[in-house]
This record gives sequence, structure tokens and C-alpha cells, in this order.
Amino acid sequence: MHYLPGQPHHLPGSRHSLAAYKGQHFGFALDAGVATITLDRPERKNPLTFDSYAELRDLFRALAYADDVKAVVIAGAGENFCSGGDVHEIIGPLTKLDMPGLLAFTRMTGDLVKAMRACPQPVVAAVDGVCAGAGAILALASDIRYGTARSRTAFLFTRVGLAGCDMGACALLPRVIGQGRAAELLYTGRSMDGEEGQRWGFFNRLCAPEELLGEATAFAATLANGPTFAHGMTKKMLQQEWNMGVDEAIEAEAQAQAICMATNDFHRAYHAFVAKERPRFEGD
Amino acid sequence: MHYLPGQPHHLPGSRHSLAAYKGQHFGFALDAGVATITLDRPERKNPLTFDSYAELRDLFRALAYADDVKAVVIAGAGENFCSGGDVHEIIGPLTKLDMPGLLAFTRMTGDLVKAMRACPQPVVAAVDGVCAGAGAILALASDIRYGTARSRTAFLFTRVGLAGCDMGACALLPRVIGQGRAAELLYTGRSMDGEEGQRWGFFNRLCAPEELLGEATAFAATLANGPTFAHGMTKKMLQQEWNMGVDEAIEAEAQAQAICMATNDFHRAYHAFVAKERPRFEGD
Amino acid sequence: MHYLPGQPHHLPGSRHSLAAYKGQHFGFALDAGVATITLDRPERKNPLTFDSYAELRDLFRALAYADDVKAVVIAGAGENFCSGGDVHEIIGPLTKLDMPGLLAFTRMTGDLVKAMRACPQPVVAAVDGVCAGAGAILALASDIRYGTARSRTAFLFTRVGLAGCDMGACALLPRVIGQGRAAELLYTGRSMDGEEGQRWGFFNRLCAPEELLGEATAFAATLANGPTFAHGMTKKMLQQEWNMGVDEAIEAEAQAQAICMATNDFHRAYHAFVAKERPRFEGD
Repeated sequence: MHYLPGQPHHLPGSRHSLAAYKGQHFGFALDAGVATITLDRPERKNPLTFDSYAELRDLFRALAYADDVKAVVIAGAGENFCSGGDVHEIIGPLTKLDMPGLLAFTRMTGDLVKAMRACPQPVVAAVDGVCAGAGAILALASDIRYGTARSRTAFLFTRVGLAGCDMGACALLPRVIGQGRAAELLYTGRSMDGEEGQRWGFFNRLCAPEELLGEATAFAATLANGPTFAHGMTKKMLQQEWNMGVDEAIEAEAQAQAICMATNDFHRAYHAFVAKERPRFEGD
Repeated sequence: MHYLPGQPHHLPGSRHSLAAYKGQHFGFALDAGVATITLDRPERKNPLTFDSYAELRDLFRALAYADDVKAVVIAGAGENFCSGGDVHEIIGPLTKLDMPGLLAFTRMTGDLVKAMRACPQPVVAAVDGVCAGAGAILALASDIRYGTARSRTAFLFTRVGLAGCDMGACALLPRVIGQGRAAELLYTGRSMDGEEGQRWGFFNRLCAPEELLGEATAFAATLANGPTFAHGMTKKMLQQEWNMGVDEAIEAEAQAQAICMATNDFHRAYHAFVAKERPRFEGD
Repeated sequence: MHYLPGQPHHLPGSRHSLAAYKGQHFGFALDAGVATITLDRPERKNPLTFDSYAELRDLFRALAYADDVKAVVIAGAGENFCSGGDVHEIIGPLTKLDMPGLLAFTRMTGDLVKAMRACPQPVVAAVDGVCAGAGAILALASDIRYGTARSRTAFLFTRVGLAGCDMGACALLPRVIGQGRAAELLYTGRSMDGEEGQRWGFFNRLCAPEELLGEATAFAATLANGPTFAHGMTKKMLQQEWNMGVDEAIEAEAQAQAICMATNDFHRAYHAFVAKERPRFEGD
């Protein structure tokens, strides 16, 4: 007999809601499936701290089980995205840590990127103004980036005496903008402006600053209204096939897409097409 | 003693000709080493069917042993390239298949891409008009893409409730146009127009529609008149090194190029240079 | 107790100076940490020979232990970068070698690229005029490429009957300019002009010919005055993560950056920031 989609996929206890979540160290709002994370210390250009790193990591990990979040927008309050690790609250204390302490820190920041890449929801970064250091990494680790012409994205680790290899930058950035351009940005720490970022494929779109958040949110809403189970599979496979051979990636996709063909959304789309209607996806 | 090229490379029974091949579900023509595959149901914008998938897969597999084909052009009849899997002939039946049946289908379509990447002949896609779904994958799986300004390439799997990971798209597309741009096209299924496709490196050239097939064929003829054994090695190594480390890739190329230095074409080129003549390559 | 940076890192006998190095088959100069290698047979457009290949390989290997070289510029004398392997001095003799001899040659040229990627110093190529064959590979194997509008970069192996897979080209070039553009250049051997090279991300900057060497050297000097230990780590990780999965790359960077946080340069940068001064990096 043929496959019958439609059975509920909720394992008992495995899913939960983030509707009541209150951000401790950043803003969090959930509306119609789109969660918006707002880094909100605008007077300091929204730096990251030990606490906000840890809470972001935990939130992105929780997103893997959150039924009611279908897409994520990450933005900064005021006219900047994020200035990265705060010099006084992070860099200073780091200079006093022993090696296990240093590694615990770099692993925590790396775990944030791992969690962003592992959650099934597409993440849309809305980048205005300063986007520096770990802030640039948050943008890089997102799936889609909307920017402004005046945005200035800088992987400026070298400016504080560190290497460009921070939180996955040497793996991620070359695949987004090319190996030669990535090398320049990582060795120099110089700013990439919005126009350059769009031309190089870092930004998917440039918006007027006053329209940035609205456009990023509208885009996220479009994804949230789509076949979200399939979107989660797209995201998973973009990650999963990162270093597979071509033939292995094709077999992996044959399996992944066969799974998606057994979902209700696939059937809904077909029947809507036959009925000359617009499909209504429900993410199962 | 030094290497003596020039011995025939034809293993008994291992090579055959496609000169007499007649396409059952698409057009096929062979002229001076260039095979032209024409998807030819123009009234439906050249959709793929179960039969044409299977025949394309078998044809590309046969190309691995075809002596008389040195390059391939793939094009669509009329003013479109390919509309992808037909909704009535493919999508509908898929909604009725069990899981082994679904996986058999996704593996068959994946096998087509594997065969396109495994045959030694460079494949040139000539893309006009609609280039959608599996059609977009056929273009993506080609080595070289010529397009038109009016072409519209859409990886629209998400529009039918499926994931962007189809036939290797999540592996191939990011390496062609960059990870961020690929993510947008795969999550949204939106069309990429010809100009955008050229700017992003998807299209190698844009042509006027009436000149598209001629220019793509002329380009394929140039390759067919080149050192085709070496071209096959270039294609093999582009595939083979996909997920090697840099040092391993360099050793692999040392071996592959040493093989090519033992071919007659390498000697022909040298002697032509010394004689101030144009080399005539013969592919052995 | 916390980590105390500042102990000398020089293992007895493990470091040496290149200040007195005299190039046998190319020019070599060292000034303020920037080594300049000049291919200098301008009447032949600076071809490579068996001897210059071997000496370049040995020099780049020696750079791994050279304390006094912090960045490298590679350039050509006259108005060309490098015409690649000389037809009379390399191609001719190759046609007379046996297979072990051929492989010894392709491994030697590959070892040059391995050494360029393995030395900790960033390599800046200054490319004017002809940049062909192995010359194009020298540019490709560099970290940063400055070019001129009139430069012509051609991976022309196919023109001499060989494959595009030479010295790592099929691995490196697709990551710099994208898979589709790389395939075209490697199959055809055609020239990429300077403007195209910049648009595609091959060149980081185009300069006026008379300013090329000066600008490339100034850029190298900026890197040489930076946190050079960290730069070496950036270079190492760009190589090391080439074919890692994303999660493995993030862990690798957590370790690499923790190492950099235990250097004096990181502390210098922090204290300079607090004192509102410009940091002076010393590479330890």
C-alpha cells in the first residue's frame, strides 16, 4: 500500500512553545511564526557579553524543538546591528583567563554558530550600521542577509591581535563571497560596505534603513508561510552536504527529498495545483 | 626508456558509437563529435517524464563509452529550456507512491545528475525561457551554461511543498553562485533572470535567443576539437577533488597530469609549437 | 592560575634568517619583514624552469622557519608576471621523460603550491601583463592578488594538450571565482582580463601598472606590521578547514583562536585599546 501522510509527528514531550519566552539579555518577540531577536544595547552598538552569548546559544538550541517558530529574524536596536564582543566585558576578562577558560569561551561562541546552523528555522539577519567581530559572524551564520548601503561589516579579529578563524569564519565566509575576498577581509579586518557586500553575495538585498526590519520580517513571514518542514530539510542538507562528495550528496538528497514527498505539504501543493488554487502549507 | 605514446587505447568491446542513436523521448543528433540533446515537447515547455528521465540517464551513462562523442549540447525546443517534472505525469503519480517507490524516483533523477557528471564529455546547456525545477538542475549539472537575458531559472521545489535539496542542488548551486545566493534561491524558489545569472556566475555567457543554440554548439565544437582526453580528465578532477583537502588534491592532479603528459596530444602540441603550426588534437 | 604569555617561542635551532638569502634563479629582497620574490627573465616574460621551480619550492619551505619574514610579495620583472613553464626548457624535455620522470615533475610543481599554502606568511601576488600556465597557478596559490587592467591570466594547459588539473587548479580556482567560471577557464585556457578577474574575485584590487608593485608591497607591509602569529593561524585554518564539516571547523577554530588568545599580541591590543593607543604588534 502507498504511503499515507497525515499522522501527527509530535513525539510526546519533544516539542514546546516559545510564545512565552522572555529574553533576558536581548529582545525577543514572536508573531505569526516569526521570532525576532533584537540585540538591544544601542548606546554601545549592541555588543555581545558572556551572558548574551550563552542565552543566544540556549535560545537557538531550544528552537530545534519549538513548534511555533517557523523563521527567525535577528536585528539590532537603533542604527547598528552588533559591535561584537564588548572590549570591557569580554576582551578584558579574557586576558586574565587560563587556557581551559579561553577554550571554554571560544567553544561557547562556536556553539552559538553551531546552534544557529542546526535549528530548522531559516535565520534572516537584518544588518544596519556596525556589524563587527562576533556581530559579523552572527550575520554570516544566518541563512539570509538583508543589509543597508551604510552597513559596515568587519571581521576585525586581527585588529585585537587575534586570527580570522573565529566561530567558523574561515569555513563559512569563503563559501559565501569566495576564497580570495574572504582572505582579504579576514587578514585585514577592514570593513565591507553594503554595496560591496551585495555585489559579493554576502547580502541578499539592500534596503533603506527605515525599511530594513520590515522587509526582513516580511521575507521571514513568507518563509514561515511556506512548507516549513521542507525548509528545515533544505537547511539541514545545505549543512550536511558541506563536505560530501557530489555523488554522496546526490544520494543524501534522494533520501531527504523522498522524506519530503511523504509529507502532507507535498500533497497539499499538488491538489491545490490541480484545483487551480494557491496551496496552504502547514509544515507537516 | 622513455614513455612511448601512440598505442591504441581501445579495449576490445569497451567502446561503441552513438552515431545511430535515436532518441525515444527527446531529440538526439550527432555532428562532428558534438551530440545535441533537444528536449522537445515545446507546447508544454519541454517537461521531463519518467520515461525521459530514464532515457537521459541511460544516454549519459552510454556516453562514458562513446568514442564518437566529444562534447554535448543540451537544449530545449521552442523558446524554453525545460519546465521540470511534469505535474500531471510525475507529481500526481508520486503522491500515490509508497516510500520505496518515492526513493526509487529520487534516486533515478539523482542518477541522471551522477551520469552527467561522470561522462567524460563537457556538457554545454543552452538555456532560453523557462528553466525550472529539474530543468534548472539539468542546467546546473552541466559544465558550461549559455543563457539568454529572458531566461528564467527557478529551483522551485519549495513551491510544490518540497525541499531545495533535489538532485544535488544543495551541493552544486552554492559552489557555482555562492552559499548565500544559493540559500535564497533554494528557500524561495524564485526565478533568477539571465542578467542576474551571468553576474552571479551561473551563466558563462548570455546570447540573443536566435543565436543561443548556434553559439552553444560552436563552443562545444571548439571543445570537441581540443585535447578531449585531457578535457575528460579536467572534468573528472573537478568532480574528484570536490571534497579533498588541498594537499590531497595537488597530489591527485600530479598523477592526473602525468597521465596526460603521456598522451599523443601533448606531443602533438609541442611539435606543432616548435614547427610554428597550430596543433591538431585527436583525443588520444 | 591564568595563562602567562611572554615566554620566548624560539626552539633552539628551529628558526633561521633569510636576510642573507640570494636568489639563484629569481630576485629576492627582504625589507622590514617583507620578502619580495621577482621572476626576472623579462625578455621571455619570466618563464619558469626546472631550476626556478625547485628553488621556489625550497624557498617557500624555508619560509616556514624564517623569523624575519612576515609577508611575501611575488612579482615579475618588466611588464609581465610569468609566462609559465618554458616551452623549450620544460615542455620539450617533458616529452622525452618516462612515467616516473613525468610524475617527479608534476609532484615538484605541486610541491611548490603545497609550500606556498603551508608557509605562515601571507603571499601577495602582483600581477601585470602575461600570467599564464604555471604563472597563473602562482597567482592562484597566493593569498591576495593585486592585478592591472591589462593583465591577462590564462590557465592554458589545454592549449598544450594537457588537462586543467595542474598544481591544484581544479581545487583552488572554483573556490575563488566559482565552479562555472572556473570550468570555462580550465576547459578553454582563455585569458581572463584584469577587470573580469576583479569582478569575479580573483583580483583583490586593480592598480595602475606603475603603482602595482608599490601598492602590493605596501599592503604586505601592513600585514607584516600586524599580529603575524595570528595571521599565520588564519592562513593555516583557511587551508585546514578546506574540506571539514561546519561543526568540525568551528571546533578547530575554537582551539586555534584560544591559542591566539594566549599570545602577547592579544594582550598588547587590549592594553593599547584601554590606553587609547594604537597597538604595536610583534608577532608573538
